[in-house]
Amino acid sequence: MTERIAAELVRDYLRWHRSVGGAPVRADEGVRALLRDLSRRMAERSTPWPAPGYLAHMTGDTPVAVTLAYLCALLYNPNNIAPETSPVTTELEYEVADDLCRLVGHAPGSGWAHLCSGAHAAGYEALWIARNLTALAPAAARHPAGRDLLADVSPARLANLPVPSVLDLVERLAARGALHEVRRLRAPAGNAALLVGRTAHYAWAKAADLLGFAEDRVEQVGVDRHHRMDLTDLRARVERLIAAGRPIAAVVVTVGTTAEGAVDDLAGVLRIRTACERRFGAGFPVHVDAAYGGYFRTVLDVEDTDARPLKPEVAAALQALPHADSVTVDPHKCGQAPYPAGALVVRDRRALAVVATRDGCFGEPRPDGGLPFAPYTLEGARPGAAAAAVWAAHRLGGLHTGGYGRLLAGCLGTARHLHQAFTAPLGSVAPGPTSAYAPDLAILNLNPGAPGTGDPRAWSARLRESGLWVSAARADTIRLCVMKPLDARGRDRVEQSLRQAFERP
Amino acid sequence: MTERIAAELVRDYLRWHRSVGGAPVRADEGVRALLRDLSRRMAERSTPWPAPGYLAHMTGDTPVAVTLAYLCALLYNPNNIAPETSPVTTELEYEVADDLCRLVGHAPGSGWAHLCSGAHAAGYEALWIARNLTALAPAAARHPAGRDLLADVSPARLANLPVPSVLDLVERLAARGALHEVRRLRAPAGNAALLVGRTAHYAWAKAADLLGFAEDRVEQVGVDRHHRMDLTDLRARVERLIAAGRPIAAVVVTVGTTAEGAVDDLAGVLRIRTACERRFGAGFPVHVDAAYGGYFRTVLDVEDTDARPLKPEVAAALQALPHADSVTVDPHKCGQAPYPAGALVVRDRRALAVVATRDGCFGEPRPDGGLPFAPYTLEGARPGAAAAAVWAAHRLGGLHTGGYGRLLAGCLGTARHLHQAFTAPLGSVAPGPTSAYAPDLAILNLNPGAPGTGDPRAWSARLRESGLWVSAARADTIRLCVMKPLDARGRDRVEQSLRQAFERP
Repeated sequence: MTERIAAELVRDYLRWHRSVGGAPVRADEGVRALLRDLSRRMAERSTPWPAPGYLAHMTGDTPVAVTLAYLCALLYNPNNIAPETSPVTTELEYEVADDLCRLVGHAPGSGWAHLCSGAHAAGYEALWIARNLTALAPAAARHPAGRDLLADVSPARLANLPVPSVLDLVERLAARGALHEVRRLRAPAGNAALLVGRTAHYAWAKAADLLGFAEDRVEQVGVDRHHRMDLTDLRARVERLIAAGRPIAAVVVTVGTTAEGAVDDLAGVLRIRTACERRFGAGFPVHVDAAYGGYFRTVLDVEDTDARPLKPEVAAALQALPHADSVTVDPHKCGQAPYPAGALVVRDRRALAVVATRDGCFGEPRPDGGLPFAPYTLEGARPGAAAAAVWAAHRLGGLHTGGYGRLLAGCLGTARHLHQAFTAPLGSVAPGPTSAYAPDLAILNLNPGAPGTGDPRAWSARLRESGLWVSAARADTIRLCVMKPLDARGRDRVEQSLRQAFERP
Repeated sequence: MTERIAAELVRDYLRWHRSVGGAPVRADEGVRALLRDLSRRMAERSTPWPAPGYLAHMTGDTPVAVTLAYLCALLYNPNNIAPETSPVTTELEYEVADDLCRLVGHAPGSGWAHLCSGAHAAGYEALWIARNLTALAPAAARHPAGRDLLADVSPARLANLPVPSVLDLVERLAARGALHEVRRLRAPAGNAALLVGRTAHYAWAKAADLLGFAEDRVEQVGVDRHHRMDLTDLRARVERLIAAGRPIAAVVVTVGTTAEGAVDDLAGVLRIRTACERRFGAGFPVHVDAAYGGYFRTVLDVEDTDARPLKPEVAAALQALPHADSVTVDPHKCGQAPYPAGALVVRDRRALAVVATRDGCFGEPRPDGGLPFAPYTLEGARPGAAAAAVWAAHRLGGLHTGGYGRLLAGCLGTARHLHQAFTAPLGSVAPGPTSAYAPDLAILNLNPGAPGTGDPRAWSARLRESGLWVSAARADTIRLCVMKPLDARGRDRVEQSLRQAFERP
């Protein structure tokens, strides 16, 4: 059936190609030979995501139906930069954008989302928006069109005006036709502080450098023994910056770190912000890097047979997502979509005005009065095929408790079972791998144990021979990233392979 | 044959999927119905790139063989972030990188190239590298490990140290293990000037804002009546900045503007730089946005039947490409590849060290001692399938005079013939469309003429009814973007449609 569908999609395309008057399509034996050779190479050496023992990378076994949806659109090569170059896939991206808004907890009409190349791009864009939001009030106070709006705000409070007040300011300046002029007055980019947890993704170091943050303004917030952001440290840093009248461009919270799957206490961060707003009249943008964790919101209402699938503190963080100003979520991680499919979800679409390109506004607005993509996205050309794939993945997988929820709950269950199999308190001496703490999401870190330590290349090669692919989060950690649920037999095999490799090396 | 190959690729994948122990692949009637419906929508409403009269956007009729190469790799979902997640497609990207280095005129061993999501991302990355290069010498002069290397350089010269000297500095600081420390000392990002032609792509406004350039440091260089950068204006600006000791982050030169296909006098810009180096000991990074124009280098040695395909000044600019510090070139524009396939080509790979992520260096170096991608690219996850598509396009199309060269010369010939059909001096009054100047590349701008002016939506709808798709570069310009050669009959049809629509509206 799968091959037949693929052939049908190609046939439809060829018919269309002829119907619009295209030159005859050539696919001779030379083409076939090249593609047969490429196909042989791919099949011989590709990374075996579908293997039951594959637990090494954050890439799942993409459903072939989703890949075919990508192919279907790819044939027509749509570019979602503007509806006129992608009449169908722009519509699909609007549907996907609404899906993603709902996933994060927003009403589609007020939130905004779009696809992008991945979490790096989403992070750059989120930080760009946040940095420009923070810079707006001080600039407006120096502009004739904004001065009266901020007459009663002290300079120290201007530096960190709460986000809702900045968004109101955006709206008022835009109504006066002065937003673009005011944006020009912003302070140099290096001026503001960026607060990121110490175990956040290395892309945030790239982002800080790219966006011009002075290195001494990038503050690495400490983490606790669960690799979650230390909120006592965060509160102290934020209060110090606010008291000094130094602008905070953003606090970046991670919901699912790459190495440990650790989930920061987002609700706690938001409580700190609320307290600052009450006590000092000062706030800061909060961005959540949920590239890995975002889709786990579909698990919130899943009832498991033997336990709640999510720890209460993880569920609380996921429940708090709609209160963050922006959220990165990657359909190409837990969303069953192939690369490239990242996404940024923005809570209040008024925020986009601070990065909008004035002259780049082409294309028709969507029928319901929504926004075109190009003037507000970091990227220009974007593959419409990616929108088709994510759209199909959401339709086929079901972006709810019974669909993605059930699948991801299964992954959580597998990780929890493996933790239980290896559980031992931190620092205890065991003859083999141990798990010191229950995983927040579906990534488990094991300590290989005294006899098993050594070069991760050596032990990962040894494990691979027994059909188990793992990675090393740090030199001394076995990282298991569960992207598909394993049944009891599958889990037993993983356990056995690990014990054999480390207990009897 | 095409459908058969597609079915074979899917069959190979399904066999591989079973062989690595994947769960059974499900493609039922529900899946088929969804995909049949998607396919029907795509075929009913997609933008007709293959149509002979389609001259509206910078997207060609991608060869189906290339699309199938994309499909072939897509099935295995490789991520070119690291070789272990993409064993085959990372190799293909190394081959493509060598192709692109050769295309731009570099020896693959010294230059460096990689694919990215598009020209926006390539531009951000190029500007990031250039900005950090410019900032390095002043930072090094303030650091104990760099001070002695710059003892005899005055502060004014430090601001604009010539690029070759900065690259030597990079190497020396790296040898002393001090590069990362020195990078931290750089001045705030808003400090340096960015010089861009007034008709450059609007993405440069995004780039300047994203990278934190203060708005008054972004200098729009004037253009002449051919929409090319005015070098008298450029020289004056550059000399003024150098004299004032104000750093120049980059001069951005466009080889093929989006609106007019205009080619800046790159050789002239490089002469200005050489003169500055001789007279003042000061230089600046030069980035070329050849997203559209880059592949036209394959035309340099094409012999046409009735004329040289390229104007001498355009040929000179293309010949000068290897002397630019970095070049954007988009395989998804003139490279016969589907979205997403942009690329950045860097002249000297030592430059990458100023944006490298220290902790992001994972993956094996390539066998010949080359560089892994992830620590040096703006993006993280990147679709390996895009590498497979560009690789196939280059192999099947032939990245030389007889391949792409012939094809693009044909596009140039079509544009030239259409220009000749409508040629009339600027300002002359004609009853219909006129072309005031011969196009630099294969984009022609026509003045619709007195009776034809009015709402571009109205006249482009009228043209579409006669089978001609065009766009409006500005409100009063008919823009024809020739992405495939037309024979005499095809050109006559275009001419006829235009005359009918504007002379007898």
